[in-house]
Amino acid sequence: MKKVIFVIGVSGCGKSTIGKLLAQELDIPFFDGDDFHPEHNVTKMSSGQALNDDDRQGWLETLNDLAKKQLKENSCIIVCSALKETYRDTLSRDIESKAKWVHLSGSFEQIFKRMNSRSDHFMPSELLKSQFDILEHPKDALQIDISLTPENIVKTIKNKLMNTSEFGLFGLGVMGKSLCRNLANNGFKISMFNRHVDGVEEHVAKNFKAEYPELSEASDFDDIFAFVNSLQQPRRIMLMVNAGKTIDYVIEDLLPHLSENDIIIDGGNSNYKKTKERYDYLKSKGIHFIGTGVSGGEEGALKGPSIMPSGDKEAYEKVAPFLETISAKDKNGLPCCTYVGTEGSGQFIKMVHNGIEYVEMQLLAEVSTIIEALGQKPDDIANTLDGWKNAASSYLLEITTAIFRKKEGDEWLVKKILDKAGNKGTGNWTTIASAELGVPSTLIASALFSRYVSFYKDERIQLNKNFESVNSSELNLTTNDVLEAYQFARIINHYQGFKLIAEASNKYQWNLNLSEIARIWTNGCIIRSTLMEELVEVFKHTDNILTHPQLIAYVKQYMPALKKVVSQSILNDISTPALGEAIHFLIGITTKYASANVIQAQRDFFGAHTYQRLDDDSGKSYHTNWN
Amino acid sequence: MKKVIFVIGVSGCGKSTIGKLLAQELDIPFFDGDDFHPEHNVTKMSSGQALNDDDRQGWLETLNDLAKKQLKENSCIIVCSALKETYRDTLSRDIESKAKWVHLSGSFEQIFKRMNSRSDHFMPSELLKSQFDILEHPKDALQIDISLTPENIVKTIKNKLMNTSEFGLFGLGVMGKSLCRNLANNGFKISMFNRHVDGVEEHVAKNFKAEYPELSEASDFDDIFAFVNSLQQPRRIMLMVNAGKTIDYVIEDLLPHLSENDIIIDGGNSNYKKTKERYDYLKSKGIHFIGTGVSGGEEGALKGPSIMPSGDKEAYEKVAPFLETISAKDKNGLPCCTYVGTEGSGQFIKMVHNGIEYVEMQLLAEVSTIIEALGQKPDDIANTLDGWKNAASSYLLEITTAIFRKKEGDEWLVKKILDKAGNKGTGNWTTIASAELGVPSTLIASALFSRYVSFYKDERIQLNKNFESVNSSELNLTTNDVLEAYQFARIINHYQGFKLIAEASNKYQWNLNLSEIARIWTNGCIIRSTLMEELVEVFKHTDNILTHPQLIAYVKQYMPALKKVVSQSILNDISTPALGEAIHFLIGITTKYASANVIQAQRDFFGAHTYQRLDDDSGKSYHTNWN
Repeated sequence: MKKVIFVIGVSGCGKSTIGKLLAQELDIPFFDGDDFHPEHNVTKMSSGQALNDDDRQGWLETLNDLAKKQLKENSCIIVCSALKETYRDTLSRDIESKAKWVHLSGSFEQIFKRMNSRSDHFMPSELLKSQFDILEHPKDALQIDISLTPENIVKTIKNKLMNTSEFGLFGLGVMGKSLCRNLANNGFKISMFNRHVDGVEEHVAKNFKAEYPELSEASDFDDIFAFVNSLQQPRRIMLMVNAGKTIDYVIEDLLPHLSENDIIIDGGNSNYKKTKERYDYLKSKGIHFIGTGVSGGEEGALKGPSIMPSGDKEAYEKVAPFLETISAKDKNGLPCCTYVGTEGSGQFIKMVHNGIEYVEMQLLAEVSTIIEALGQKPDDIANTLDGWKNAASSYLLEITTAIFRKKEGDEWLVKKILDKAGNKGTGNWTTIASAELGVPSTLIASALFSRYVSFYKDERIQLNKNFESVNSSELNLTTNDVLEAYQFARIINHYQGFKLIAEASNKYQWNLNLSEIARIWTNGCIIRSTLMEELVEVFKHTDNILTHPQLIAYVKQYMPALKKVVSQSILNDISTPALGEAIHFLIGITTKYASANVIQAQRDFFGAHTYQRLDDDSGKSYHTNWN
Repeated sequence: MKKVIFVIGVSGCGKSTIGKLLAQELDIPFFDGDDFHPEHNVTKMSSGQALNDDDRQGWLETLNDLAKKQLKENSCIIVCSALKETYRDTLSRDIESKAKWVHLSGSFEQIFKRMNSRSDHFMPSELLKSQFDILEHPKDALQIDISLTPENIVKTIKNKLMNTSEFGLFGLGVMGKSLCRNLANNGFKISMFNRHVDGVEEHVAKNFKAEYPELSEASDFDDIFAFVNSLQQPRRIMLMVNAGKTIDYVIEDLLPHLSENDIIIDGGNSNYKKTKERYDYLKSKGIHFIGTGVSGGEEGALKGPSIMPSGDKEAYEKVAPFLETISAKDKNGLPCCTYVGTEGSGQFIKMVHNGIEYVEMQLLAEVSTIIEALGQKPDDIANTLDGWKNAASSYLLEITTAIFRKKEGDEWLVKKILDKAGNKGTGNWTTIASAELGVPSTLIASALFSRYVSFYKDERIQLNKNFESVNSSELNLTTNDVLEAYQFARIINHYQGFKLIAEASNKYQWNLNLSEIARIWTNGCIIRSTLMEELVEVFKHTDNILTHPQLIAYVKQYMPALKKVVSQSILNDISTPALGEAIHFLIGITTKYASANVIQAQRDFFGAHTYQRLDDDSGKSYHTNWN
């Protein structure tokens, strides 16, 4: 937990005194910034001239170098007035998350009186006044009242700074625990909270800390007050609890203990509309609220997830050092974490991420069913999918390959799993958002409804008896046909998902960057894939991937195979709703004259809803008496 | 506006006096019920014996016959104590909506004193007391305080009964106007309201009244206060305004003028959850709220729509004479209007009705596209669809046939209509409700999304250039194949729609009657069809139509054609998402082992979501370390 403590404040506030005492108490090196002025500055000051900002720049950089060098060994204390924000930016460049600020603060009268009581150190009031004029109040600093005794000041600083945590994690479920370990592994001092429920959740945080050596410096709590008070201000508290009402209850529990400008981060799969409501509510209380998607599952959360935060940009800056550090990195080493936009935009794109994920999973379920119908056993299917790695590499393909390989004794584990798919709300919400926004996300709806169909297991068994298959058509396909069909459907899936994001961005004026969103989904998250990497570039040129030459070429190349696969599947009683929707959709969205004219005529016939005409661009409404 | 006014009350309340004066005032015949007792009753009474209910039955029926006979000519007044509800039921049998009750009411002391002040008419107090004991307070009657002077009583009755309307219609859009004419054509005295908006909506009600002779007795308003005060109490006010916030504004406008137990009926396509909220809100104000679906379009509303009311049963009874009279009638002559259930159940089933309608329309659009691809021109398509009447008769088939026949000069009108389909929210809501309730309404989602796809006309034109069809496969289908595919998909559509209703009924404990719902959809509404008539019977035996032998036989018969039609359409670049979903769904819902085991394995792999096993019925959760 190495850090550089900058003790700052106007001349005469007592920086050097307090800095030295604190260094003694903490047993770390002390440096007085004034000792590092270059010759030129010293000469200038000796001649009675004031330094200007150009004079100071090199000196501040020297102190920044000093801080970086010291951090390799140990913590340290550097004393420097650092009155302006820009000075502090230079001092903490590249070490933002390790720079801690202690501002010794008092009134003009207080300091003037104190200074002039020291006979050897008289300062004209004009000089002190100019210091107050220059001072830009440091927002992130620990404010210390100089009227306390030096001993009390040192004690307070030590308690608040050295014995407190930088980041709080509330809720130690699968994801919360992994994030804690990730934060700790990255050298952050964290506080971890899990509620106490008699006989159900007891000593969760304590036991968790005991389990992993990397958590030795972490603090564990099951008392909210103590948890909140263990955190440095502004507090950063990340909630990893069940989405829904629980979030609101937790917020109410936390509120009485929070201070202005504290930051609550919701890392759960909350509904984006709720995030907006909570943001507004907390804003009225002076608390920042960041809604962030986190994808990567248990392993991603531990080793580096994809993180999608949204809310105030200003609040984001305060948590960025933490989130960007623990996130996955893309192929260029940049964090798979970016400021998405205002309101609930981060949770919106996480929702769509999960919608895309639903489809990718469903497509793999469908293609493996077709491959099985071609006569392959699970290990053959695994080999086939493994062979697709070069053409269609993705995390989900990888784990599905592993799933088909997994044995339990002599038997394939996958064959023993009950075929009722669960869903936790986000696929459902994505479908609802599509319906609300007027965007045809047919594959996501299809994947969602396939899970619902699977859920009616008892009915399926009952109906299966009524409709035994009588089909004997031959399934005349190659696994390469299936691969190409899969590739085609994946493109449509990504088209639809990003279309939904683009339309929401328009509607809510989020001004989202599709390329950047694709980029933070190239690693850490469940839908990372080589296709996603290609899309990072594609979205630099267009918001509509079906207008990009490379994607057009893919679609044209794969389309014959998809048509063959879907039509043959239907003839052979294999249900492939997502693959099927992919082809219906592509035909639909590339059809110049759709059959919607018939629907408009029907609506006008029975409901006098009127229609527009092809030969009248004015948008005028027509009504016909059809009878 | 003929009616029978029954003046009722205990002996001595002054019935005869008031009845005669009122008859004079209104210039209509007067009948004293006592004059119609049969010989047997007269003898019995003369001998000092009291009549029992058996004695009275024939006499009451005679009065009922008298009322019916008079109604053919004119209004009339009949005086009769009619103390019990059952007596009144007999008196008004088959003329419920024309029977008006005036109850002359006073306290025991008041009447006892008054009677004994007439020297020739002494009544022992025990006798009068027994009258009060027998009296079942008539809820729907106009209560008149007998302490008023006879002149005032007559004036009050005349004002409240003869010069006031029985039913108010708020909002004169297409549907509101048609309902007004329907009510008036059925002899109801109505008040009609439309707001005044300078330069936009001026004298709407007045002009409307002037336009149609049947409205000569109707009262027109653009002032809410006057409108509300023109209505008999309890007031019945049906709102036919835009769904959404407008309903709430209108309710707030009405509330200050309403009295306890007045009834507001929302006949718009309101969201069923909102209906529940409004019901609760109005209940707290002592006002009844009935949410009702109304289907049939402009023409149905005029000639007899299908009506789906829900709310308090008690409030429904008060509006039933109106709604049931104006509704369409099924093939047995019963009204296509029934009390659906509590809360927003009526609006829920109307929403699903519209979802089914979306699909029926989409299927007709898809099959006509296929038939066109077979080389038929619009009039050929019309002939083909006309030929389907016997096998698959429905209102929508009928109008679609007419649409394809309609010419504008030498050209087919349908070909001139812009292919961007509108939607007014209910298809959208049905999809959302499906997603929320966990029910796979794949066809409704598919029809909704097809409209959305059509809406992206500009993009379709742009993408059409990128993906010109290169297909040359031959469309090897007969129109009979297409008919059978259509029939198959319609069965799946109705299965899914009623499934959604059944699941909502379970979740909200509405206890809905599927057969009765199908029955009120056999006439008046947009989705009336012979299939719907068959379902009335099917749902008497099962809630799941795919378990019914006749439907199983149909599905098996049509399935080969559907598979052929969908697979060939795909190979020929014809988008048939709804037909396609129908086959994928049937295969899915009749599949014993679905591919959801793969999805469960994936979820457990990346998110530790656990899974259940086929070989463990206990519901236990398993987790595997897949790596």
